[in-house]
Formats: sequence, structure tokens, C-alpha cells
Amino acid sequence: MKIDVNEAAQFLKEHDDYLILMHASPDGDTLGCGHALCGALQRMGKNAKAVCPDEIPEKFEYLKKAVKPQEFETKTVVCVDVADTKLLGEMKDVGDAAELCIDHHLSNTDYAKRTLLRHEYAAAAELVYEVIEALGVPFDGALADCVYTGMATDTGCFRYSNTTPQTHIYAAKMIECGADFGMINYVNFELKSPGRIKLEQEVLKNIRYYANGRVAIISVPLSLVEQINDIDNDDVGALANIPRQIAGVDIGICMKEKKPGAFKASMRSSDKINVAEIGMLFGGGGHARAAGCSFYGGTIEEAEQKIVDACCKACEENP
Amino acid sequence: MKIDVNEAAQFLKEHDDYLILMHASPDGDTLGCGHALCGALQRMGKNAKAVCPDEIPEKFEYLKKAVKPQEFETKTVVCVDVADTKLLGEMKDVGDAAELCIDHHLSNTDYAKRTLLRHEYAAAAELVYEVIEALGVPFDGALADCVYTGMATDTGCFRYSNTTPQTHIYAAKMIECGADFGMINYVNFELKSPGRIKLEQEVLKNIRYYANGRVAIISVPLSLVEQINDIDNDDVGALANIPRQIAGVDIGICMKEKKPGAFKASMRSSDKINVAEIGMLFGGGGHARAAGCSFYGGTIEEAEQKIVDACCKACEENP
Repeated sequence: MKIDVNEAAQFLKEHDDYLILMHASPDGDTLGCGHALCGALQRMGKNAKAVCPDEIPEKFEYLKKAVKPQEFETKTVVCVDVADTKLLGEMKDVGDAAELCIDHHLSNTDYAKRTLLRHEYAAAAELVYEVIEALGVPFDGALADCVYTGMATDTGCFRYSNTTPQTHIYAAKMIECGADFGMINYVNFELKSPGRIKLEQEVLKNIRYYANGRVAIISVPLSLVEQINDIDNDDVGALANIPRQIAGVDIGICMKEKKPGAFKASMRSSDKINVAEIGMLFGGGGHARAAGCSFYGGTIEEAEQKIVDACCKACEENP
Repeated sequence: MKIDVNEAAQFLKEHDDYLILMHASPDGDTLGCGHALCGALQRMGKNAKAVCPDEIPEKFEYLKKAVKPQEFETKTVVCVDVADTKLLGEMKDVGDAAELCIDHHLSNTDYAKRTLLRHEYAAAAELVYEVIEALGVPFDGALADCVYTGMATDTGCFRYSNTTPQTHIYAAKMIECGADFGMINYVNFELKSPGRIKLEQEVLKNIRYYANGRVAIISVPLSLVEQINDIDNDDVGALANIPRQIAGVDIGICMKEKKPGAFKASMRSSDKINVAEIGMLFGGGGHARAAGCSFYGGTIEEAEQKIVDACCKACEENP
């Protein structure tokens, strides 16, 4: 059942003992939403805990200031920024019993008893902000940090075209309420481990251009990841954006060896090319400007040849 | 004489034939201010042109959509984002006759007959936005592009701690008026030339750490710049931010050879260290978190040794 912000707030007022689920491979939006909502419910005198099936990256440690650890028996499950309970990993079954879902993905599978969905919002955190307002909980700095984190991370710090006037207006409010946005943005958009610097350096050595520079590809073989200490999945994930940043490149590809013989291609494109269509050719998919697909068997060079050929063809068809 | 926004608007209404000066080595704020104000005055039926003593970088070409070329004899000189007429290069004398200055630098020398100054604003473009509002000129997309560009570039796309709630609120308005912010942010914050990628790769090969990783330094000898095609001053300037992005680094240094035997050190720091003080030791200066100084004579290694020694000492004194 689709509900609106006031109905979601009414539901939250009437229930208690909340387990708030955040999706696996957590990003700033799901973590920001989970901690903000948990903190707001605790400030209302409710029992609440925010739980993620995967470990929370160390850089998000500061979000925990918004909540206090509580022990109680769960009565009400709420999912935040979770489009599909498959994204809950080993906690899928818990998520399948969700009473409420707060989300901004068009692809939401409507799995919860009640769904508050705004697919036109850049971040689910914008919706959580509205719910907390409707609950009447005032924002302190710690809650503001959580909401700001969700909005900033899902928009590349207000850079991407999913940003709306509303995103900026809510960011202004969070700064007024004391969000430590300088620290948050440093941690999320500037800070790199020495390992990541090394990794970027190594993959850039081997960047290759095709289709008169319109296609650029970098490779991350397992041997490279194993050779460098002090890198995590986040570091490897961030590489996908690099080739597309180069002037003249319409499709940037990052080919990663996930395990021996299993490869994942991540593509980013300019508005001339729909990479979701290229991903679908190989059983993958995604968005028009960011998509991916997997290859199994053979060598990384063979997988690269396949995706490069498809991308060059797309460039020919879209001059 | 210090004046307020309404007085500045009144002055602009009462005069005509404007020459609007933007500072040398132009950045997005001075260019955004100049083109926005020029476009707004033209929309009021006034004669106006925006002029910069240096060439305008190609990536800012889109700002020109806000203005049309006009030929007329200058009667009124206005400076935007110009703290000191020394920053006008060969146009200093023209700037010394300025009737009006619109600026946000605390260091403004009060050279103009009338100065509209808000040093607490992140960007001079915020002030130009207020002036255009007071003039009653409605914002179209092209004017909004200019104001948005000034605000985004002076705040690292709303990342830096100089950003205020007002910056976000004005950004929201500019997006509502049609600013093409996705394009603007791509051009200013993502796009890199293949030469810049190559340059980053080369300097990162040779990054060195001191003081248990709290000081990191990269070098850009002339031979490197000459060896890589397709790089400009902007590309070299952007390197200064890289060492400070590394986890654990409190002072990041970029040492550039400007010409044989002339070296410039750019420093960026965490809130533990005031690099302006270090710059002053060598006759330079700047801000607490971003400063620089020059060295003449000797080798690049000797200049590096001097700045590294001073930075390590500052780390010892500020554990």
C-alpha cells in the first residue's frame, strides 16, 4: 500500500520497538536514513536500532553519534533506501516482514505492507527528513549529519543532475541545524587511502582508448588488488568514474576481475550513449548513464574485447 | 565608501555604458559575476561589456551565452570579485578609476569609489545575485548559469566549509530558473584532459611522505610539464589538492618549477596546522588551510628540503 509522509509519521508514532534495515554494501544514503530515523525515534522515547547486513565502512563512524545502542525485542521492521529485499543479503527474510519501507527507487518492488516512495527525490534522506519533520522531532547536529550525508553522497555533493532545488533547500536547513558538512564532505569526497592513490596510479598506467578516443577502458585484475595493501571495495568501486572524466570520452569502462574467471564491466557515459542498452546485450543493465554487466570464463582481455567492440559499435551508431 | 545592495542597484540604474572588469587568472566566480552582471544590465537596455585581462579558459565558453557583444565608449567602470587592482594585471589603471566594486574578499583594499562588500559570502556571485534581484531583472537560464558557476566553483561544489545555508538557497533558485548545473559541474569538477591524467599519474609516482605520513609532497619539474602535451595552468594548479587528500596527511605540498631556478610551493592543511604561518617563514602567505611561498636559486630538491623541514617542525609542534 502506498502511503504519504503524514501517514508514515502517524504509523511510526503508533508503534514501537523498531528494527530499521539498511541495504547491503551500504552507501551514505541508506546509512544516513537508517541512523537519522533511528535517532529521531529514540528522541521520541521509542526503542529503535539501525542494522545493516554488511559491515559499515569506517569513514561513516560519525553517523553513530546520532543513536544510542539499545537492547529490546523487535516488534516493527522498517526498511530505508531498500528497493528490493534481495538487497538485504542474509537479512532478506527479516525484510520480507517489513511493516514500512521509505525509498526513492523507481524499481521498488512494493514488498512492504506500507511504502512511502518518491522516485523523483535525489536521496531517500530527503524523504526521511520530511518524515522526521512530520514527527515533530527537532534536528540537532547529529541528526542533521545523517540527513546531509544521504543527500550529499547520492548526488556527488550536489554535482549530478538528479539534484533538485529541494535537495539544496534541505541541505541549507541541515547546515542551519549544525551539520558538520565540511568534515562530511572531506571524508566522503576528498579523503583517499595511500592504497587507493597507488591503485589509481596503477590502473591509469594502462588506460586504452578506442573509437578515436570516444571509448576508454581501464582494467583491475585480481593480481593488482592483491598486490596493493590497504584498499577496500569502495576504492575499487570509485575507479569506475575515472575513464569517463577524460575529455572526449563518451563511454568509460572499468573491467574488474571479481574472482578468477569472473569479470564485471562498469560503464559510464555521456548523454550521447545509453549504456544500459549495452549492458543488456550481455545480460546486465542499469541506468542510461551508468550500467554494467558480467562475463564468466576466459581471460580479462577476452571480456574487454567483447565490451569494447559493443561500445565502439554504439559510438558508430551515435556520432 | 561602503554601500549596500540597494544602493548598488540604484547606482547601476542611474548610469550606463559599463565596463565590467574581472580579475586576471580568472576563476569561475569572477567570470560568473562579470557575465551575469553584464547580461543583466544589457537586459535593462544598458550598454555593457565584461572584460578580463587574461584569456578566458575554454571550459567557461558557455558563460558567453548570457551576453551579447556591444561596441560603445566606456563611461562607468565596475569591478567584480577583484580585491585589489593589482589583480587586474595590465588593466590596473582602468580598475583604479572604478566607480563600483562588488566583492567578498576580506582583503579588499577599498580602491573603488563605492564598494559593496560581504566577506562572509562564499562567492561574490551571491552578491551579484542579490544586486540583479534588486535591479528587478528576471533570471533566465543563461544568467542562472553564470551565478551558479560562481557559487559552485568558489565552494568546490558546496563541499568546502565556506558554504552557507544562503549558498544552497541561491543555488536552488538558480536551478529553478534553468541553470544547466549538470553540465556546469561536469565541466568544472569532472572533466580532465588526457594530458592532466598523464600528469597526475607521473607526479603520483614520486609522492614522498615525512613525519610519519603527516607530510606528503609531490614535485612538478619543468621537464615534466614540457614532456606532456595538452596541459594548461589549470591542470598544474589542480595538483596542489592531491597530497592533502591522502588519509593521515596533515600537510600536502606541491612543489612546482615555474622557470629554471624559480620554485613555488603550494600547501594545503588539515585544521591542525596553519600553513599561512609556514608560508610567511619564506616570504609567502595565504589562508590557514591553503598557502604558498616561492624559492629562488638552487635545485628543486633543495627547495623541497626547506619546505619539508618547516612542515615537519610544524607537525612536531602540533601533534
